[in-house]
Amino acid sequence: MKRNAIIGQSGGPTAVINASLAGVIKEAKERGFHHIYGMFNGIQGLMNEKIIDLSAFDDEKLRGLAYTPAMYLGSCRYKLPEKDDDLYDRVFSILKKLEITDFFYIGGNDSMDTVMKLSGYAQKKGADIHFIGIPKTIDNDLFGTDHTPGFGSAAKFVAGTVLEVIYDSRIYKVKSVTIVEIMGRNAGWLTASAALARSAVQDRPDLIYLPEVPFDINRYYEDIAELFKTRNNIIVAVSEGIKDEDGHFIDEKRTAKDVFGNTIHGGVGKLLEELTLSRFGCKVRSIELNVLQRCNIRNASLTDLKEAVLIGEEAVRAALKGETGKMMVFKRSAPYQIDVACADVNDIANQEKTIPLSWVAPNGHDIGAELYDYLTPLIQGEVALPYENGVPVFMDIRHLI
Amino acid sequence: MKRNAIIGQSGGPTAVINASLAGVIKEAKERGFHHIYGMFNGIQGLMNEKIIDLSAFDDEKLRGLAYTPAMYLGSCRYKLPEKDDDLYDRVFSILKKLEITDFFYIGGNDSMDTVMKLSGYAQKKGADIHFIGIPKTIDNDLFGTDHTPGFGSAAKFVAGTVLEVIYDSRIYKVKSVTIVEIMGRNAGWLTASAALARSAVQDRPDLIYLPEVPFDINRYYEDIAELFKTRNNIIVAVSEGIKDEDGHFIDEKRTAKDVFGNTIHGGVGKLLEELTLSRFGCKVRSIELNVLQRCNIRNASLTDLKEAVLIGEEAVRAALKGETGKMMVFKRSAPYQIDVACADVNDIANQEKTIPLSWVAPNGHDIGAELYDYLTPLIQGEVALPYENGVPVFMDIRHLI
Repeated sequence: MKRNAIIGQSGGPTAVINASLAGVIKEAKERGFHHIYGMFNGIQGLMNEKIIDLSAFDDEKLRGLAYTPAMYLGSCRYKLPEKDDDLYDRVFSILKKLEITDFFYIGGNDSMDTVMKLSGYAQKKGADIHFIGIPKTIDNDLFGTDHTPGFGSAAKFVAGTVLEVIYDSRIYKVKSVTIVEIMGRNAGWLTASAALARSAVQDRPDLIYLPEVPFDINRYYEDIAELFKTRNNIIVAVSEGIKDEDGHFIDEKRTAKDVFGNTIHGGVGKLLEELTLSRFGCKVRSIELNVLQRCNIRNASLTDLKEAVLIGEEAVRAALKGETGKMMVFKRSAPYQIDVACADVNDIANQEKTIPLSWVAPNGHDIGAELYDYLTPLIQGEVALPYENGVPVFMDIRHLI
Repeated sequence: MKRNAIIGQSGGPTAVINASLAGVIKEAKERGFHHIYGMFNGIQGLMNEKIIDLSAFDDEKLRGLAYTPAMYLGSCRYKLPEKDDDLYDRVFSILKKLEITDFFYIGGNDSMDTVMKLSGYAQKKGADIHFIGIPKTIDNDLFGTDHTPGFGSAAKFVAGTVLEVIYDSRIYKVKSVTIVEIMGRNAGWLTASAALARSAVQDRPDLIYLPEVPFDINRYYEDIAELFKTRNNIIVAVSEGIKDEDGHFIDEKRTAKDVFGNTIHGGVGKLLEELTLSRFGCKVRSIELNVLQRCNIRNASLTDLKEAVLIGEEAVRAALKGETGKMMVFKRSAPYQIDVACADVNDIANQEKTIPLSWVAPNGHDIGAELYDYLTPLIQGEVALPYENGVPVFMDIRHLI
């Protein structure tokens, strides 16, 4: 049977989503697929028949792709409706026209919802297409997999950046608090990675606040006051998603009007900065790591990059074995080794995996030993990017207007 | 004559100040200096006799030092008074007690002021000590030198980061403006470096606003509107220090009270974010690169790192030749080659070098060809840092409390 694949990317970027795309293309080429298509801007692009033929990608282009952050095919944030036969029929008629046998979708929670719905519809209608989800997210919040591609690179960026900030913050002999705000609304995996900045010669960050643990501002003040007894410079790693005891985001309280009458939405870092300044009158600075967490390929984890390629390759193998309605997952064995398997996408879509409370330190503002052991292997190895004129060489993405 | 050196660091950090420190120690050791002292927290530490003996640093430690960002000796922000004989006498009695023959001070404008005042006092009192300033600043705003150590690494970080942000911003098919706020209150060198993200395959950032060019918000709106005619995703690089026609900082207008009654000081990036949102109603995001610009060693410029070591070495050679009251400077020749020379510190201290207006593009929101040619050599080459457990290995700085 002649096989034709189509691949899409969806949701927010990571440093290594294109590495998974490269893995799919590479394996599909090797396994003799006739056409390998890409859909621009995810399922929305497919519905508008914005399609590119990727079959001609050679090894050099695949390597360039693996080293390019964000999404070569562009993305969308679109959830398929529960029921809309016209819409689903249109999608499947386009897939039929292209003679698609295998559909790969690289994304997070919402993207797995797309895989679930399309594979469900195919089953109902008897369409013989394999729908395989390939996970990615810096948040590491997908069920069914040991971790997600993209997380290791984001975690390595956070750890290395927090380490540099620690060195930066320490030079003056004045009391100071430096607050680093890290992504993750509900899952604290990325914030927890700040702990990996520690080594035999330095024990900061001092405080790590995860969204899994209710945040109490008075407890925070006590933590800071206690630390000031023995050190001048305090480093706080805080998740953007910390919540109070009632589950309200702390940064919900942070809105104001500027002199133009516009509403200011500041993050939790800025809020803590102001509260700390009011309370202690010391030097305070907040740093929002922002999108660098999800697009920084220069400091990517080699482990993560390799695994991202591997999971793309394995997705093709799974489809060839007849799997459908599955998300590819990582299984870990000790000493650290990763095998790739399939899990039913129905068990994964639309859920969030957070840090087990048993992995949080008893004091509530640090991580426990098991979480260290879990995180450390994921950030190992550095990537040697190609550079030209002092900046990294990335793929041409001018097709994304 | 037995020579004893003392070295201090002062002002804000850069990624490669410790590389200059390593250069001084290395050369002083090779030239047979008896003692090589460091003062903790700059001239303030010296006055309190907080001194460390660095003479035992071997090659391995010197290499580790060169790869450690920020300041191994700690810093201060302290300007010596114009006249206070008691204070100056105290400084010189400490230097005499240590039998110091050569005084090296690594810093920016204010640090050169310290070198100027101490060398002037020494001359007045007939003290035979050589005072040599070694420049550093990410702002690149010192007179008398082609560029400053530390700037190239910051510029490379800005260029690479803006490139990654460009890729990140481009994935969605919706109109968006991404604003990157870059350090530099009065000198736009670092903001200009955002232009180095451009290559044969991508022409962003779209707009670059320097502090040297008066900023007009209506002109900004016109620039954005014009770009939206042909592209969805606009990238703006803006200096934190842009000013209106009357020379007032744009972000002066940006203060507000939050719900706690605290004053919010936002940067110009946040301000432009809100104004752009109000005006265009599109997706807008602002990113403040913050202290990463000055402490990111992972993505340092190899050219910058090597030059920082070299200028430290040359400072020792200059002192041995009898120079005093001098700052070490870079002289450039074409094709790019750097020689190190001395300049009178009186001509350098307390001044700021900004971008010549002839190097700004005629449209006022971009850089000209000469500035490209000036900047490009400074960011060449990548640094292979030592890593352990997935994070860089830096020197132990636990002596900075």
